[in-house]
Amino acid sequence: MIGKLYLIPTTLGDTEPLEVMPISVKKVVEQIDYFIVENEKSARKFIKKITPTKPQSSLQLHLLDKYSSEFETRNYLDICNEGVHVGLLSEAGVPAIADPGASIVKLAHEKGIQVVPLVGPSSIILAMMASGMNGQNFAFNGYLPIDKSERKKAIKNLEKTSKEKNQSQIFIETPYRNKSMLEDLRAILSPTTQICIACDITLPSEYIRTLSAKEWKFEKADLHKRPAIFIIHY
Amino acid sequence: MIGKLYLIPTTLGDTEPLEVMPISVKKVVEQIDYFIVENEKSARKFIKKITPTKPQSSLQLHLLDKYSSEFETRNYLDICNEGVHVGLLSEAGVPAIADPGASIVKLAHEKGIQVVPLVGPSSIILAMMASGMNGQNFAFNGYLPIDKSERKKAIKNLEKTSKEKNQSQIFIETPYRNKSMLEDLRAILSPTTQICIACDITLPSEYIRTLSAKEWKFEKADLHKRPAIFIIHY
Repeated sequence: MIGKLYLIPTTLGDTEPLEVMPISVKKVVEQIDYFIVENEKSARKFIKKITPTKPQSSLQLHLLDKYSSEFETRNYLDICNEGVHVGLLSEAGVPAIADPGASIVKLAHEKGIQVVPLVGPSSIILAMMASGMNGQNFAFNGYLPIDKSERKKAIKNLEKTSKEKNQSQIFIETPYRNKSMLEDLRAILSPTTQICIACDITLPSEYIRTLSAKEWKFEKADLHKRPAIFIIHY
Repeated sequence: MIGKLYLIPTTLGDTEPLEVMPISVKKVVEQIDYFIVENEKSARKFIKKITPTKPQSSLQLHLLDKYSSEFETRNYLDICNEGVHVGLLSEAGVPAIADPGASIVKLAHEKGIQVVPLVGPSSIILAMMASGMNGQNFAFNGYLPIDKSERKKAIKNLEKTSKEKNQSQIFIETPYRNKSMLEDLRAILSPTTQICIACDITLPSEYIRTLSAKEWKFEKADLHKRPAIFIIHY
């Protein structure tokens, strides 16, 4: 038997794992000792929380983050040939979305290893559901440029694409830059363009609000350092 | 107190709800009697399965499907003013994604009603995770045109956009047309363009495979009448 690659979700913050994911995730983590992880510390913390009785000493963790080269990671799935299952864990949320995990999934397909995605919290899909914007046509764009003028151009382009394709445009920002992102959106977008901001998704402090660019000028929202998803629709 | 709008996931097929969603979904369904549903029969079946002791006679179900007009549904959230929580339920998977539910979420934002998205299976995000394609930039395009020549044009356009933006392109098809969709993709796309097909996601018969258009010519896959997600990447 050849081992499988399980795509294991984690929490989006400090919540109980079983509040935001099915019991089947716990059952899979119980079976697995070999993990490919985006961040070792957060992975150990999650594994301990969801399977408190699993000895940490039995864990084999292998790093895959944005600095990992293909050369370093190309042997990570060899152990599947010995019938061992491998788990892929992101730093937050579901793996292989908005993180470097997809390269390992690609490798699994090339090697004919079965890939099993497990259900858990994806801030992108939860924000999209809760936005009230077009969920039949949407795009996730990752981070926008940091440079002021390039960023302005990117925001204008997203608004234009949204108008032309009736497509909701999702993007993310580093939490300490949320405030300036909202200021840019207010200033650059047409007054009637809708902006959804979804902060601290699945946490007790969850905040999700959709308003027009004009209405956001009067909304008092404390977004500072809170993980957020932005969605706009013309 | 004003009632909230809960976005309640359901299963993607005949699985036990708690195998694919957290226990918190069950707790919310226990509290709610007033539901806005895409399909009454499947909604009743799901509510019965996840909360067997809830009397069906206490349920108030209100229809929101692709034939519903804004006029019919505009009062659906009035009951929130009486402190009653409302649940939104799609026919399969998470509501307000690839279904008409977003209009009610939009109404909730307009009325200042809190929207609470719950975690559950989204075939789009599970397929994207498992595809091994770029998960940092992707678009969901819904259904492609049925007309042969328009469809060909749409497929070509998706491939072009994928190349230009390094963006994975997700779309869906009516299950009995999956086979002809795969034939079209094989014939129209460049031989090296990657195609992921994810069928029966979360079911025991789950099948997820990423191959190039050329390799798909030699792959024996029975896709007929199985719910599927297609993703391509140049």
